[in-house]
Amino acid sequence: MIRFENDYAEGAHRRILERLLETNEEQSAGYGMDEYSERAKMLIKDACDAPSADVHFLVGGTQTNTILIASVLRPHQGVISAHSGHIAVHETGAIEATGHKVLILPSEDGKIHAEQVRRVHEEHWNDPTHEHIVQPAMVYLSNPTELGTTYSRTELEELRKVCLDCELILMMDGARLGYGLASEGSDLTLADVARLCDVFYIGGTKIGALFGEAVVITNPALKKDFRYMIKQRGGLLAKGRILGIQFETLFQDGLYMELSKHAVDAAITIRAAFENNGFEMKYDSKTNQQFPILRNDEIEKLSKKYAFHTWEKVNETESVVRFCTSWSTKVEHVRALVDDIESLKRRQ
Amino acid sequence: MIRFENDYAEGAHRRILERLLETNEEQSAGYGMDEYSERAKMLIKDACDAPSADVHFLVGGTQTNTILIASVLRPHQGVISAHSGHIAVHETGAIEATGHKVLILPSEDGKIHAEQVRRVHEEHWNDPTHEHIVQPAMVYLSNPTELGTTYSRTELEELRKVCLDCELILMMDGARLGYGLASEGSDLTLADVARLCDVFYIGGTKIGALFGEAVVITNPALKKDFRYMIKQRGGLLAKGRILGIQFETLFQDGLYMELSKHAVDAAITIRAAFENNGFEMKYDSKTNQQFPILRNDEIEKLSKKYAFHTWEKVNETESVVRFCTSWSTKVEHVRALVDDIESLKRRQ
Amino acid sequence: MIRFENDYAEGAHRRILERLLETNEEQSAGYGMDEYSERAKMLIKDACDAPSADVHFLVGGTQTNTILIASVLRPHQGVISAHSGHIAVHETGAIEATGHKVLILPSEDGKIHAEQVRRVHEEHWNDPTHEHIVQPAMVYLSNPTELGTTYSRTELEELRKVCLDCELILMMDGARLGYGLASEGSDLTLADVARLCDVFYIGGTKIGALFGEAVVITNPALKKDFRYMIKQRGGLLAKGRILGIQFETLFQDGLYMELSKHAVDAAITIRAAFENNGFEMKYDSKTNQQFPILRNDEIEKLSKKYAFHTWEKVNETESVVRFCTSWSTKVEHVRALVDDIESLKRRQ
Amino acid sequence: MIRFENDYAEGAHRRILERLLETNEEQSAGYGMDEYSERAKMLIKDACDAPSADVHFLVGGTQTNTILIASVLRPHQGVISAHSGHIAVHETGAIEATGHKVLILPSEDGKIHAEQVRRVHEEHWNDPTHEHIVQPAMVYLSNPTELGTTYSRTELEELRKVCLDCELILMMDGARLGYGLASEGSDLTLADVARLCDVFYIGGTKIGALFGEAVVITNPALKKDFRYMIKQRGGLLAKGRILGIQFETLFQDGLYMELSKHAVDAAITIRAAFENNGFEMKYDSKTNQQFPILRNDEIEKLSKKYAFHTWEKVNETESVVRFCTSWSTKVEHVRALVDDIESLKRRQ
Repeated sequence: MIRFENDYAEGAHRRILERLLETNEEQSAGYGMDEYSERAKMLIKDACDAPSADVHFLVGGTQTNTILIASVLRPHQGVISAHSGHIAVHETGAIEATGHKVLILPSEDGKIHAEQVRRVHEEHWNDPTHEHIVQPAMVYLSNPTELGTTYSRTELEELRKVCLDCELILMMDGARLGYGLASEGSDLTLADVARLCDVFYIGGTKIGALFGEAVVITNPALKKDFRYMIKQRGGLLAKGRILGIQFETLFQDGLYMELSKHAVDAAITIRAAFENNGFEMKYDSKTNQQFPILRNDEIEKLSKKYAFHTWEKVNETESVVRFCTSWSTKVEHVRALVDDIESLKRRQ
Repeated sequence: MIRFENDYAEGAHRRILERLLETNEEQSAGYGMDEYSERAKMLIKDACDAPSADVHFLVGGTQTNTILIASVLRPHQGVISAHSGHIAVHETGAIEATGHKVLILPSEDGKIHAEQVRRVHEEHWNDPTHEHIVQPAMVYLSNPTELGTTYSRTELEELRKVCLDCELILMMDGARLGYGLASEGSDLTLADVARLCDVFYIGGTKIGALFGEAVVITNPALKKDFRYMIKQRGGLLAKGRILGIQFETLFQDGLYMELSKHAVDAAITIRAAFENNGFEMKYDSKTNQQFPILRNDEIEKLSKKYAFHTWEKVNETESVVRFCTSWSTKVEHVRALVDDIESLKRRQ
Repeated sequence: MIRFENDYAEGAHRRILERLLETNEEQSAGYGMDEYSERAKMLIKDACDAPSADVHFLVGGTQTNTILIASVLRPHQGVISAHSGHIAVHETGAIEATGHKVLILPSEDGKIHAEQVRRVHEEHWNDPTHEHIVQPAMVYLSNPTELGTTYSRTELEELRKVCLDCELILMMDGARLGYGLASEGSDLTLADVARLCDVFYIGGTKIGALFGEAVVITNPALKKDFRYMIKQRGGLLAKGRILGIQFETLFQDGLYMELSKHAVDAAITIRAAFENNGFEMKYDSKTNQQFPILRNDEIEKLSKKYAFHTWEKVNETESVVRFCTSWSTKVEHVRALVDDIESLKRRQ
Repeated sequence: MIRFENDYAEGAHRRILERLLETNEEQSAGYGMDEYSERAKMLIKDACDAPSADVHFLVGGTQTNTILIASVLRPHQGVISAHSGHIAVHETGAIEATGHKVLILPSEDGKIHAEQVRRVHEEHWNDPTHEHIVQPAMVYLSNPTELGTTYSRTELEELRKVCLDCELILMMDGARLGYGLASEGSDLTLADVARLCDVFYIGGTKIGALFGEAVVITNPALKKDFRYMIKQRGGLLAKGRILGIQFETLFQDGLYMELSKHAVDAAITIRAAFENNGFEMKYDSKTNQQFPILRNDEIEKLSKKYAFHTWEKVNETESVVRFCTSWSTKVEHVRALVDDIESLKRRQ
C-alpha cells in the first residue's frame, strides 16, 4: 500500500535524526533555553527578515492555535475563521475550551476575504445590542488553507489593511506554510508573511520534522508573557532542544523550502495527470494536497494500491478524494500513481 | 561543567534513537493508531498486570496532569494535592485554567496521608454551607514526590481505602515513577500502582525517552472519550508512533526499570557520600533526587565544577540544594562528585 | 411613546410587589432555603405534574442557560441549537466562556427538528475522525422560539425520542414559556414539557416577575450538586426568598398562565389587524411576538407613536419589524395600534 | 427567634419598595439603559468624588467578584487574596472557574498588608522559573473584611503604592462597604476608596437593597467593554432599572450611610455588652459583625432566643460565634440581647 493519505505518515528527514543522535549526550538547559533553540530562532528571524520578532517552538498545531488565540483574546472576544478552518472543525472545540467563540465565515475555497472581515466588523459595531454578541477581535487564516488554496500577496495585504482599520489581530496558521510558499505561482514570501501578520507559525510536523511548530510574533503587543501561556497549556517541552535541533536543521541551509518544493512538485505532477486525463479538480490547489473528483469505481480501483482520503460525496456515483504528498513522497510512488491514473482511461 | 541539575538534560537512550532511525521511512497511521503504539500499550498493560486498562501516550507532564484532571472533574469540583505538588506550584495554573481549584494540604515531606484526605472530605460535607465551597472529588499524588520521598504499599492502600470510602478518584503523577519503584527499599510495584490508583502515568521524559508520558486508566468510569480530551487540549501527537516506538523500546525488555535503577544507584552513592561526611539531608529521599544542606562556601566550591539546583535557603549561611541523577548519569561523574564531597573535609 | 419593544419594559405584576411589601420585615434563611421558595417549588412541581422534579430559582435567562449547559456537558461536548437560538447569538458567548461549543443547525423558523438532530448525531459518529470534533451531547430548544414559533406536542415527542435514541440531553429554554403554552392552538401543556424534557425553565422575567427563572430538572442524573453550580456561576441570590415570593404569587392561583394569555390575546389582535390590512407576517407566530413586514414609510409613520424593534431588512423598501406584547400590555394601547394599522390604508 | 445570623435576612428598606411600586407601570429601556440607572450612577460618582468613573450595577457579590477579576486578568495571571477572602473560600471556586488561581496570603485578622504584597511580587519575579508559576497581577481586598476588620487610610495608601510600584491592579470587595465606612474610628471615606482603588464595589444586598452591587471603575484601562463581560457572565439584568431605582434611593439623600451607621451602632452596643461582661472578642471589629468567644453553655442559652453563627471552635468548651447586625436590626432586639448578655453573669 502506497500512502498519499496525509503528510505525517513518516518520521523525520534523515538529517534531523542524525543530528539528534550526534547531540544526544550533550547536557543542555531545559525548556527551550538551550543553544540549539537560540540558533534556530536566529535562523528563522533571518528567514523572515524580522530581526525583532519573537520565536517560540511548540509541539503541534492544535496546541499552537489554542495557545496563540487564548493569549490574544479577552474573555468576550472571538476569532473569525472560514467555516472550513481547522480551529472551526477539527480541534474538538479547543478554542471554545479556552472560553472563546469561533466566528464562522462562509467560504467556497477555504479562504476568507478582506471584504467579509470588514462586514463582520461593521455588522457587529452597528448592532445596537452588540454588547450581547461576541466581539470579533482576531482573524484566523490558514495558508495554504485546509483545501490547498493559497493567499496571494495582494489578498494578504488587503486583509492586513482591514485588520489595521478594524483593530483586529491577524494570525496565520502555517501548519503547511512551506507547501504554500513553494506552491506554483505563489508570490508570497516568508518575509511577506512576517510583515503582514501579527503572528503566524511555520509548521514542522508536516514538513520534515518529527514534530514542531515555530511561532513567530511580530506584533510587539503580543509578545509579553507568551512563555507563561505555553507552560500553562502544557506546551513547554522539557527537552526543548529537540525542537531547536529540528528547526536549526530545517533552516540552516534551506532544507525547509527544499522539502516543501519536493512535495509541491509531486502534487503538481499528480494534478497534471488527473487533469490531462479528463478529471475535474474540486479545489484549485497548487500545493501538496490535490482534490480530484472520481467515480466510485475509480476510487475502488485506486484504493487497492493507494491509501488516500475520501473527502466528500458529490453524488451517488462520484466523490471528491484527497491525494496528499509530502517532503518524503517517493518519486517512484508518484510515477506509479501517474501510470495508474492514465490507465483509468477516462479520455477514451 | 557536570550537570546534576535535573533529569532532562540529555536526549534519549541510544536504543530509542536507533529505533526511530530504523523505522523512519515506514508509513503509518497517525494520531497513535499505529502498530508501535499498539504494541507499546500491550507491553505496558502486561507490566502493570492490568489487561483491561486503557493506555494513552502524551507528550509532557503538565499536559498530562491537565488533561487527566479536567477529564475527571465536574465544574464545581477540585483536586486535593500536597502544597508542594507539581500541579499546585509549577504548572502556571494549568489546572485552574481548566476551571478547577487545587485544594492544598500541608505536608512536610511532599506526601499526603489518608487521614488528611478523610478530614478534608469530612470537613467539606459537615459544613452546612458546603455548596459555597469547592467540592473535593479527586486526590493527586506524585510518586516519588517533588521532594524525592515515596509512598509505601501500605500508605497507598490506605489512600485507596479512603478514596473508596469518600468517592474520590485517586490519581498518581508518575513523571518519575520508575525512580520511585526502583528506590531503595520500595515495596511498591507497577502492578500495585495499577491496582490501587484509578489512573496514573508512567513518565518517559525523565527516564530514557526524548519525551512522553504513558497514561494508564484502570477505572472503567474514566475511560470514556479520553481521546477527545487529549485532542481538545492539544495533546494528540500527529506522528503518534514516535511515542509508541519510545515506550515499546522502554518496556520490551525491562529497559525502563534498568534505567531507573541506574539513576537511583547513582543517587544513593551521592547521598552516602554526603552523609558519611557529616552532611544532613533535608528530605529522606531514596530516589534520584538528593537534598543535602550545604554551607554557602561549600555551595560555591561545588558550583565551580557541578551544576545543581539551590532549593531553598535554610539560614544566612546554609541552603538546601538538589542533586539530581538520571538514566544517563555517567559513573565517572558520580565518582568525581563523591571525591569532591570528601574533600569538603567536613569531618575534620 | 407606547412601547411594544420588548416584554420587559415594566416592573412586576402588582400582586408581586404587594407581597414583597407584606413580607418585607420577616426574617428568613438565605440562599433559597426559606419557606416561600419551598412553597413555590411545590406549586411548580404540581403545575408540572412532576412531584419528583428538582426546582431551582435563578435570576436571569443567560445565567440559567449557562449554568444548565455547563452543568450537563463534559469538556469535549457541545450543545445543538438552531442558528437563531439565544445561546447562539445573543449571550456574548456565555456558553463558550464555560468551554463548550454551540453546534449550529440551520432553521427557517427558529425551530429544530428531530431528523436534523439525528443527522448531526449520525454524522458525528460515522466520521472516523470524530475524536477531532466536538461531540454533540445536548439539544437546546427555546419554546416559543426567538421568532415566536412553537413546538407541537408531536414535534416535542419526536425530539424526545431522538434524544433517547442518541443519548442526548433535551433542554428547553422557557424564557417565554407561558406565552408559548398560552399560544393560539398550542396542544402542549406544562406537564408535557416536564415529561418530555430532561430539564427546562419557566421564565418569570418576561411574564409578570421583576426577574426570575424557575429551573425544573426531571432527569435524576442531572440533579446532583446543581446548587454548587448555581453558586459558582454567581446565580445564588442571598435573599432567595425574593424569587420564592414571586413564583409563589405567579403559581398559587394561575396568575402565570392568566398573564401569559393576556399577552397572547393582545398579540393575536395586533396580528389580525396587520393581516386584515394586507400585511404579510414574516414568521408564523401565535405568541406574544409578531413580525409583520412593513414598508419604510409605514415604519416611519408608526415609529412616531410606538416603540418597536426593526428586526431585519427585507430589501431597500421593506423590513421585518417586531411588535412585542406582554403580561402588562394595556388594552387601550393595543386598540390604538390597531387603529393606526388600519389607517395605514394598505387595502386601498 | 431573633436573628443576628446574617445581614440579609429581611427584604429591603421600605422606601425602596415604595419607589418600585410608584414606578412600576412606567415603561423603560432594558439592560440598565434607563433613566433611573443613569441618575443612580451620577449620585454614586458624586458620592465618590469621581466624576469620570464608570459605574455598573450587578445583582450579587460572587457574580461581581467573578466578572471583575475575569475582566482584568490575562489567562496566566492570578489574584492575591487573604486566605480568608471571600473569593478564596466561599464562592465555590468561581474565580478558578474563569481560569484563574487565587494566590493566598496568610492573615490573622482578614487583612493583607503592603509588605506581604511586595514580597509576593518579588518572590515571583526573582524566581528563575517564574514562567512556571501563576503571575500575580491583582490584589483583592475586602473592606470590611470577612472578620469585620477594616483598613485605615494609611494602610490603603500603602497598598496603593505597592500596587503602583509592582503594576498590580487594586480591587476592593465592598459587599459591606457602608458598614466599614461607618465603623467606629474609621478615617476612610468613599472618596478615598475611589481614589486609591482601581476598581471596587458598593454593596447594596447587605445594606438596604433587595439585592445589588454598584461597581465603580476608576482606572480607565479597566473600563473598556465591561458590559460585554457582564452580559457574558449572566449579570446583565433585563429590567436594569430595578437596580437603578434601588441605588438612586440609597444615594439620593444619604440613606446608604444612615443605614450603615444604624447597623454599626447596634453592633458596637452589643460588643460593649460582651466586653463589659468579661467576654473576649476574637477579632477587633468596629463594624456590623462581632465575634465574641463564648462557652458552650452560654452558646446554648443564647441559642434558645437568638439565631447566630458558630464561627469556629476554640477548644472543647469554647467557640467563637458571630453576631451580625444590619440596616434593619431592631433597637428592641439589641436591647433584649444586651440584657441577656448581662444575665450570663460572667462578671461574678
